Amino acid sequence: MPVYQTVKEMTGALAAARRGGLSIGLVPTMGALHEGHASLIRAACAENDYVVVSVFVNPTQFAPAEDLSAYPRDLEKDRRLAEAIGARAVFAPSVEEMYPEGDSTWVEVGGRLTGLLCGRSRPTHFRGVTTVMTKFFNIIRPDRTYFGQKDGQQAQVMRRLLTDLFLPVELKILPIVREKDDLALSSRNIYLSEDERRAALVLSRSLKEARGRLENGERSRAAILDGLKNAVQSEPLAVLDYAEIYNFPDLGETGAELSGQVFIGLAVKFSRARLIDNIVVDLG
Amino acid sequence: MPVYQTVKEMTGALAAARRGGLSIGLVPTMGALHEGHASLIRAACAENDYVVVSVFVNPTQFAPAEDLSAYPRDLEKDRRLAEAIGARAVFAPSVEEMYPEGDSTWVEVGGRLTGLLCGRSRPTHFRGVTTVMTKFFNIIRPDRTYFGQKDGQQAQVMRRLLTDLFLPVELKILPIVREKDDLALSSRNIYLSEDERRAALVLSRSLKEARGRLENGERSRAAILDGLKNAVQSEPLAVLDYAEIYNFPDLGETGAELSGQVFIGLAVKFSRARLIDNIVVDLG
Repeated sequence: MPVYQTVKEMTGALAAARRGGLSIGLVPTMGALHEGHASLIRAACAENDYVVVSVFVNPTQFAPAEDLSAYPRDLEKDRRLAEAIGARAVFAPSVEEMYPEGDSTWVEVGGRLTGLLCGRSRPTHFRGVTTVMTKFFNIIRPDRTYFGQKDGQQAQVMRRLLTDLFLPVELKILPIVREKDDLALSSRNIYLSEDERRAALVLSRSLKEARGRLENGERSRAAILDGLKNAVQSEPLAVLDYAEIYNFPDLGETGAELSGQVFIGLAVKFSRARLIDNIVVDLG
Repeated sequence: MPVYQTVKEMTGALAAARRGGLSIGLVPTMGALHEGHASLIRAACAENDYVVVSVFVNPTQFAPAEDLSAYPRDLEKDRRLAEAIGARAVFAPSVEEMYPEGDSTWVEVGGRLTGLLCGRSRPTHFRGVTTVMTKFFNIIRPDRTYFGQKDGQQAQVMRRLLTDLFLPVELKILPIVREKDDLALSSRNIYLSEDERRAALVLSRSLKEARGRLENGERSRAAILDGLKNAVQSEPLAVLDYAEIYNFPDLGETGAELSGQVFIGLAVKFSRARLIDNIVVDLG
């Protein structure tokens, strides 16, 4: 399976696929593929004839102090994984290919959606994501694209982007994939020390506790948030970045009494890793 | 010839055209079509099988104090003109169709290109233009699009937008069309009183004088700008907005001694109209 590193090679291959009447699926990734990505690629291969996995560590979605240079990269391993599942191409352009000299266009989803959760902790993050994804959508012109609910806010930002810009791409959002002990899969988990790996279970555990309280009839937003914050703060290696509850899927504000579908999101910092996790609970 | 007012109707007609193997040209306008637009539509019809003329007075490219509500509108007249030249459809969506409730995505060409000339006088203008044009390009997916050199800066902003976002659309820029007395055609000329109509000749006249000086060997940027400013200021009904000289086509800074291709741009205010004009001179 080929790895295309230029837009020209990639669009050439796609033109041939399109002439053959093939439907096109795009799984955008930053590489360091794990079973979460694999679930996206599998879904894409089930629903499209020609699946492209893009591998691009997008500098514009990292802030200066973040982990851009440390972000794990292993293109050959990624290629083998994508090929084994049935992808037809990996698109792995250079930074210069995606942002050539003179590049100066930004695509930004404004409003409150990008100002909350990860948007508050990482103010320029989503602008980088939406800018590069608009480029990818225009290069690949997929029929369908696949995102993980792990980055639940990103998936909703993507829905807004596609709707607002009239991009004719169907958005598929797939469930979070977890380790056996329930840690959400993330390429950043490799940053964790052994002790931190154990401590990182505080994310999924506290979210499950929150779900338990809701299932037992608790409806107070404040009580659920207190429970989450206390759980994270009781873990010495973890530093709470945010714990928030919003309506799902629009991420609108909830009342003090929770109802309907709610999204509970958590971001927690360890010495080198900032991890996120979330659950959606339907309160009917 | 049909006028489509919804994205759904428009994309339905385009899908049929595409299935028939037709190439697609887009002439984006704000309506009030004149011979300048007609020249774009003629070029589009010569080079494409299926030409769409969009008619949309885009609110996001007007500042609050500008002429959005006064902007001339006559859709039936526009439809007849487009049809007579050979366009296959007019796309005239409502504001709600292009900016539905919840819309919050902006596409912005940053950097110096959008900060000079009209970008200095109208700071949010180009953001509105690039946002709506990205929507139009995604809806119409034209092979080619047609812009006038009258809005010379806009044409270069469009080139940047298409390049940066990898939009596979060929940009065609056509020459300024002028009245017999050399006033550049503009939908805003109807705002001029009879006296102002005569006074408005100061734009093309002073630009021609500048060209004459350059052809006679003048190379001093300051001398050319002084000549332009003095000419406009000698006209009592005219107020100079800007007179600027940049390299062409990139609109980069010139030296004090002019050389190569230069763009000379002028914006002048009258009581109700702000008019722009420009010339490009090749100094070899």
